[in-house]
Amino acid sequence: MAAHRISDAVIRRLPGYYRYLRDLEKVGVTRISSQELGARMGLTASQIRQDINCFGTLGQQGYGYNVPELRAHIGEILGLAHGYEMVIAGAGNIGQAVAWYPGFSQRGFHVSALFDVKPDLIGRVIRGVPVYNITEMRAFLREHPAKIGVVATPARVAQTVAHQMIEGGVRALWNFAPMDLKVPEGVVASNVHLTDSLLVLTYRLQRLEEENSAPSNEPAP
Amino acid sequence: MAAHRISDAVIRRLPGYYRYLRDLEKVGVTRISSQELGARMGLTASQIRQDINCFGTLGQQGYGYNVPELRAHIGEILGLAHGYEMVIAGAGNIGQAVAWYPGFSQRGFHVSALFDVKPDLIGRVIRGVPVYNITEMRAFLREHPAKIGVVATPARVAQTVAHQMIEGGVRALWNFAPMDLKVPEGVVASNVHLTDSLLVLTYRLQRLEEENSAPSNEPAP
Repeated sequence: MAAHRISDAVIRRLPGYYRYLRDLEKVGVTRISSQELGARMGLTASQIRQDINCFGTLGQQGYGYNVPELRAHIGEILGLAHGYEMVIAGAGNIGQAVAWYPGFSQRGFHVSALFDVKPDLIGRVIRGVPVYNITEMRAFLREHPAKIGVVATPARVAQTVAHQMIEGGVRALWNFAPMDLKVPEGVVASNVHLTDSLLVLTYRLQRLEEENSAPSNEPAP
Repeated sequence: MAAHRISDAVIRRLPGYYRYLRDLEKVGVTRISSQELGARMGLTASQIRQDINCFGTLGQQGYGYNVPELRAHIGEILGLAHGYEMVIAGAGNIGQAVAWYPGFSQRGFHVSALFDVKPDLIGRVIRGVPVYNITEMRAFLREHPAKIGVVATPARVAQTVAHQMIEGGVRALWNFAPMDLKVPEGVVASNVHLTDSLLVLTYRLQRLEEENSAPSNEPAP
């Protein structure tokens, strides 16, 4: 059991390790060196070794890492050893994108229901997932417990919807509404702000254009 | 001009600063201390001061920060002073979610067109944005230059679509396909992996459950 305290920076990189190792496993790669893995992921070999050392000594000098073992171990740390039931509030574009995202079922996530307020959506079954009235969400959760709740509603109702999910037994909230959810102790929330990654992109675009337009005083690297 | 080198960690936090300052400005707050801003953002006052010092000395001892000034300054660093034209490849749920996201137009992003391969989408105008055949994308970009391209296609065609965008003059790629785009020098890309934030959430959920189920040997905090 990985009960080590892992730093936030390493935790943020873990899903990336999981993705890369999964892709390697898919194409039949069974072992990889820290150099090779680093080159693929855009990290240095020493960074890779340092990160992986945080959660146990899994590499061997001169052999590298066993890909399926390391992938399984990271999956366990990420809590993917058991599956998760998930409900989604808001059956708009974001809610539907999450519901049908193929990567989720592959990682053991199962969407049991979507909830919305729109009469033309309620009662439909879209790609196997039923859409119910949001007023039925708490009752549904009593019958069909789910640990993960996705909030894909307008911002003005997101906090209320989150509270209803928590009352229904949801312990982890994945929020796409453009605001930060407040949650009580014993519940975790992740607020996804799509614009944030766009603004980091425009930052880098602007730096790039400044570099290109500035007269170069430095020798070329 | 903010030509300082800002660390990646600070850059990642900049959009958050921008959001919080924007929200404060909206409700008429004109100045804020590092303590207050830190409490809202879940950062320490010294972290706030350290971050903001990276891009100039904008705070005053005993006064705090001027909210509209600091927001404008961070917006400038993020490259938001001028607007951006944006095209989107893939008019599925993710593509449409990006196209209609209200936060983008407020920040100066304008979606000029969506591109897809589906006959039932091509030729439609959805909420003011036309959907064209993806084969017309390069020609469209010659007539209507756009610096930002959103890739919301299946993974298997994402790299090809990205190349077509770059040939059409796109300099920044915002990629939602579940793979990492390779881009030539002079072009920047941001690969958004939606599952990553979900896996960080399950990691935290699992730690929480371990803590709750473990016999406590430590005094309560």
